[in-house]
Amino acid sequence: MSDLFPSNLIAGYGRYLQKGFVRFKETHERLAIYGQKPEVMVISCCDSRVTPEGIFHAGPGELFVLRNVANLVPPCEDDASLHGTSAAIEYAVRALQVKHIVVMGHAKCGGVQAFRENANVPTLKGDFIGRWIKLLEPAAISMACMPVDKLDDPQLAMEYAGVRQSLKNLMTFSFVREPVEKGGVTLHGAWFDIGSGELRVMDPHTEQFKTAADGKVAAVSTAD
Amino acid sequence: MSDLFPSNLIAGYGRYLQKGFVRFKETHERLAIYGQKPEVMVISCCDSRVTPEGIFHAGPGELFVLRNVANLVPPCEDDASLHGTSAAIEYAVRALQVKHIVVMGHAKCGGVQAFRENANVPTLKGDFIGRWIKLLEPAAISMACMPVDKLDDPQLAMEYAGVRQSLKNLMTFSFVREPVEKGGVTLHGAWFDIGSGELRVMDPHTEQFKTAADGKVAAVSTAD
Amino acid sequence: MSDLFPSNLIAGYGRYLQKGFVRFKETHERLAIYGQKPEVMVISCCDSRVTPEGIFHAGPGELFVLRNVANLVPPCEDDASLHGTSAAIEYAVRALQVKHIVVMGHAKCGGVQAFRENANVPTLKGDFIGRWIKLLEPAAISMACMPVDKLDDPQLAMEYAGVRQSLKNLMTFSFVREPVEKGGVTLHGAWFDIGSGELRVMDPHTEQFKTAADGKVAAVSTAD
Amino acid sequence: MSDLFPSNLIAGYGRYLQKGFVRFKETHERLAIYGQKPEVMVISCCDSRVTPEGIFHAGPGELFVLRNVANLVPPCEDDASLHGTSAAIEYAVRALQVKHIVVMGHAKCGGVQAFRENANVPTLKGDFIGRWIKLLEPAAISMACMPVDKLDDPQLAMEYAGVRQSLKNLMTFSFVREPVEKGGVTLHGAWFDIGSGELRVMDPHTEQFKTAADGKVAAVSTAD
Repeated sequence: MSDLFPSNLIAGYGRYLQKGFVRFKETHERLAIYGQKPEVMVISCCDSRVTPEGIFHAGPGELFVLRNVANLVPPCEDDASLHGTSAAIEYAVRALQVKHIVVMGHAKCGGVQAFRENANVPTLKGDFIGRWIKLLEPAAISMACMPVDKLDDPQLAMEYAGVRQSLKNLMTFSFVREPVEKGGVTLHGAWFDIGSGELRVMDPHTEQFKTAADGKVAAVSTAD
Repeated sequence: MSDLFPSNLIAGYGRYLQKGFVRFKETHERLAIYGQKPEVMVISCCDSRVTPEGIFHAGPGELFVLRNVANLVPPCEDDASLHGTSAAIEYAVRALQVKHIVVMGHAKCGGVQAFRENANVPTLKGDFIGRWIKLLEPAAISMACMPVDKLDDPQLAMEYAGVRQSLKNLMTFSFVREPVEKGGVTLHGAWFDIGSGELRVMDPHTEQFKTAADGKVAAVSTAD
Repeated sequence: MSDLFPSNLIAGYGRYLQKGFVRFKETHERLAIYGQKPEVMVISCCDSRVTPEGIFHAGPGELFVLRNVANLVPPCEDDASLHGTSAAIEYAVRALQVKHIVVMGHAKCGGVQAFRENANVPTLKGDFIGRWIKLLEPAAISMACMPVDKLDDPQLAMEYAGVRQSLKNLMTFSFVREPVEKGGVTLHGAWFDIGSGELRVMDPHTEQFKTAADGKVAAVSTAD
Repeated sequence: MSDLFPSNLIAGYGRYLQKGFVRFKETHERLAIYGQKPEVMVISCCDSRVTPEGIFHAGPGELFVLRNVANLVPPCEDDASLHGTSAAIEYAVRALQVKHIVVMGHAKCGGVQAFRENANVPTLKGDFIGRWIKLLEPAAISMACMPVDKLDDPQLAMEYAGVRQSLKNLMTFSFVREPVEKGGVTLHGAWFDIGSGELRVMDPHTEQFKTAADGKVAAVSTAD
């Protein structure tokens, strides 16, 4: 058995030092001294094909990024258990005072697919992933009861529904709901297509997803 | 209150479409069709100054990235609660069969700092972040009782200790321990310095962190 | 306050004695002496517009009829709670040895509608109906994840999905599953349209509902 | 094994379409459009020999009918379990605003008989019917300690006692007790003799059952 740190990571880090880090050297020094003050939190998937900083071409200090399986936000559960996702959201809103929270789903999401293939299969003891993705159950129920989209693709429909549900769940945390209601924090839904690079942004009023092609998102009403 | 999707994100996405996406267009198309098959999982912090794909200069499909506050891995708790971090690790090892898991800490970690400032303060109801970072308690106890480093910087020492503890906790999951013991999966510790861009890698035997400067990590023994 | 037994019921009973009872007088006497031996159990809704004995023109002794809100069968839960529906199914199969169990949904089902309108609304203490109709959650999840029908009418789709789920749940009781597997008991789905009187029967293979108009149900394969 | 829908049901349905449905065609169309508004809820047994709509000669839309084993109403138990019977009662009173609730027992009740034969036998795991009919235990205790009737027939006495107990249990639900106390809802006991077709109605004051032969129930006081 080899304990060697993966050589491709070391090689990649070498290139980073020469390129990426050099480009943002002053930013890094400033951020180390004054701390981070990102305006945006992105909640996205662990998927290796979906990198928020890449997709939004964001430099150091811009995005506070939570990544878990299927970009899920659980509803507020105020018990004694550990809630890593809730903790990150609390930290973003309370400590960092981000102004935007973007929940970004994506195509071909393995977590969503696993949920669909195992719908209504009881989870076994020790099945962490099975329990986690059951967070999609309310999304499925909403989809079935009050469909927003007319989509023939149940995988896509569930990916959208998952983003909508996470946005709803965000509002169950008082530390999110209160600044949202006061206008200090805004919630956003987005969806990324791995194959085409297309980004879709959710219209907060119709809850429908529209392409943000060429960097020009369909005009979204500012009412409310 | 404006519901507009943040314009800097849209602008950044426009640049991504012209640069980042174009560079990896074929990779994206291939990944959409054949699925992801990353060899490395990185567990790092949500911090806006620490982007694994940036630091390792990794393209789409290379890194499965879990990000939570203070890059913490809880010990295996086989109860009915939600365990988002455990779920992501299970998915990485069982479904994606990654070969490496890298736990990457970083300088100026706000989660570690909050833990240090509130050590022995009981957590209140609704204090998600407080409960989450209490995962560092065993790290603090180890640090106090069996110090690995002689460091004058308690923040840095705790950041290191947190990485070590997460590596220990990873071994409490049978689906990690078994492939680690058989050699199919290797665990790694790392630490990133925001201000200087320095990456340090943990020697698995001495558990000490050494610079991987200029892409040349100090030779790490392959014994075991 | 009047304690009088409703006079219309008394009047209706008078007509029953002269008509309905007289027609089946001997049957009643025989049934009182030798007991009931129905071959069919019908599980239908409490709805005042859906009377199984009427719809199937059945006389005394023919149908063992369980009626609850939304014709729901819970999954087998072997705890110490009361399970009235499970008890009735157990009695039908074990004590009466019925040969068929028909789960019959219907149009305009208030229970289904209440579920759809309150999807993902947490139930309050004392909200019996809210908790009961949450039995439809797995039906909604199946509908969203693995849609059988392409229906633009989410109410109808949920009514169908509820029948399918109840049939699935029936199979979670060993005292149902075992005789079903041996061929002694057969399960059926049906749906009644209040306005038109149309009865639809579920094809057990495709799980789709087809009209049984004029008493001639679409030929259903006998394979299996 | 045949999956065919029972042919006698299909044949019966054909007769229903030609007779029963035709007779109430306009009523059905109206009920489909305007919804149900029954004034009476009947709680009766699943027994195939006891059809409330038949006994009360009731047409579509008249009776909201709950049927379970032995026409039992559990006491209000405000826990997280499923309570199908309580749910149906809640729906009848709160959503449909019925004015009368009739608990109708009957002769030769298999559930009552099973209870009597297994009195004091502990219920086994998985014995749904055994647990369900233990709802009759308080009825048995009342019967033994404070007998209302002087009857030589313990089966009949228990059938009566079961109806009385269910009426008492109805009053443990605040959504029943309150409108009963205000006069908006009235509770009634009844008992049907399978062999003779005789209907008996419970006097709410003496709690005794008297024949309602020929449609003429013994005068019941309106005092209270």
